Amino acid sequence: MKFGRFEQQGRVFFGAVEGDQVTELEGSIFETYKATSEKHALSALKTLVPCMPYNFYCAGLNYAAHIEWANQRKGTQTKLPDKADVGYRSPNALIATGETIVIPADAPGPVQYEGELVAVIGKKARNLSEKDALSCVLGYTLGNDVSDRGWQKSDRTLWRAKNCDTYKPLGPFIATGLDPMNLTIAIKIDGKVVSEYSTAKMLFSAQRYLAEISKYMTLWPGDVLWLGTDGATIPDLADGMLCEVVQNDIGVLANPVRRARA
Amino acid sequence: MKFGRFEQQGRVFFGAVEGDQVTELEGSIFETYKATSEKHALSALKTLVPCMPYNFYCAGLNYAAHIEWANQRKGTQTKLPDKADVGYRSPNALIATGETIVIPADAPGPVQYEGELVAVIGKKARNLSEKDALSCVLGYTLGNDVSDRGWQKSDRTLWRAKNCDTYKPLGPFIATGLDPMNLTIAIKIDGKVVSEYSTAKMLFSAQRYLAEISKYMTLWPGDVLWLGTDGATIPDLADGMLCEVVQNDIGVLANPVRRARA
Repeated sequence: MKFGRFEQQGRVFFGAVEGDQVTELEGSIFETYKATSEKHALSALKTLVPCMPYNFYCAGLNYAAHIEWANQRKGTQTKLPDKADVGYRSPNALIATGETIVIPADAPGPVQYEGELVAVIGKKARNLSEKDALSCVLGYTLGNDVSDRGWQKSDRTLWRAKNCDTYKPLGPFIATGLDPMNLTIAIKIDGKVVSEYSTAKMLFSAQRYLAEISKYMTLWPGDVLWLGTDGATIPDLADGMLCEVVQNDIGVLANPVRRARA
Repeated sequence: MKFGRFEQQGRVFFGAVEGDQVTELEGSIFETYKATSEKHALSALKTLVPCMPYNFYCAGLNYAAHIEWANQRKGTQTKLPDKADVGYRSPNALIATGETIVIPADAPGPVQYEGELVAVIGKKARNLSEKDALSCVLGYTLGNDVSDRGWQKSDRTLWRAKNCDTYKPLGPFIATGLDPMNLTIAIKIDGKVVSEYSTAKMLFSAQRYLAEISKYMTLWPGDVLWLGTDGATIPDLADGMLCEVVQNDIGVLANPVRRARA
């Protein structure tokens, strides 16, 4: 099953997506809902970010080849993490599929994509075992953890390196029933695959992250956990490009890139 | 004027607080509201966290004496920051005045308070000048940035050092019309003042932080900016203590401390 959040003439609703048809739902997929008799063509609706999280967790370093590639590029010696310490991003930066990633005029760059699997929490949870951890997940969507490598190096925190407005594309839909540890994620620039990896290579599984987080924190419906990216994240994003994160069951998160003028 | 958010028999509403009386408001202080004829005794209501932020900004290192004290204690040489790089906290950790700070059974500690001034955003804003930055602020409240110094050192990120459930007391009320750069904040343990400082000593002003953030990020109604703490943050928090953050115009953010049993 695939859920989306949509807007039509100022009205916002959740929908169930089948092919290019959307069945309108009454209620919230994070509380209770039921299908209505209203059907829409997907193309007739504006697709919104599928959820607005209160808690925005991000695994950060979660694939060996990505860390090794970053070390080679930067001449650093960042070690593989030895435990699942989670980081944070901020909702101001979220945009939906189709919306534009705007690189600030003064961004030092390079600005790069990071295509990621995202777990969307569906049920309030605390103290989950690793075995039961996925029971709190409603489904999975895609994220692009757009990152300014210059600011990542110069700033004390990741605030503008990772959280400028438009730097967190999320969507298009939330797909249920997937195994998060066995999916192929591809990133395309202008229609050409530039990166492809399997989520089987996560250093710490989705289950492990959720169990660790829930030892100390209540997981809430609508919270998201971004699970990291693998490999190189080039070519750098530049004005006029189209960047797509693709997974067959979830769909395509497609965002054009624009550089703001000073 | 002082605003609060309250619960009575499952009903949640904003109110205007005068002394120990609350005038119930219709609507939201972050959108539109009007006073009703309903009055309540403050003691008859449960005081909630005054707002639920989507974006939870935290100045982190923003007072020289706190950084110098931490350096002495830890034998570190953290320099004063040379620019206003903002960090993040997570809403799961928020609790209201009167609610209990629960230290996890496996927390290495020491666990310490950090009493802070908090700016609450009232209006959507982007690209504010430093001169106009406070125009987006609805008012000010108090926060306690409870921190586990052991996890702060051992973990790659500040996730459980700063964001365990209950580690972010916020409130009690939002006071309007204050000068954020000229307030005295006191912290009391079991009724005795253990720390007192003036917000005049911020390294980067509230105005400066808001202007910097809004260069890259849209500020939204209900977002919060925690402005850092000064000086030492001892004695360490322990089971049975009462920790209060006090500012005369805003009120008292009072939270008992409990250590969870393994």
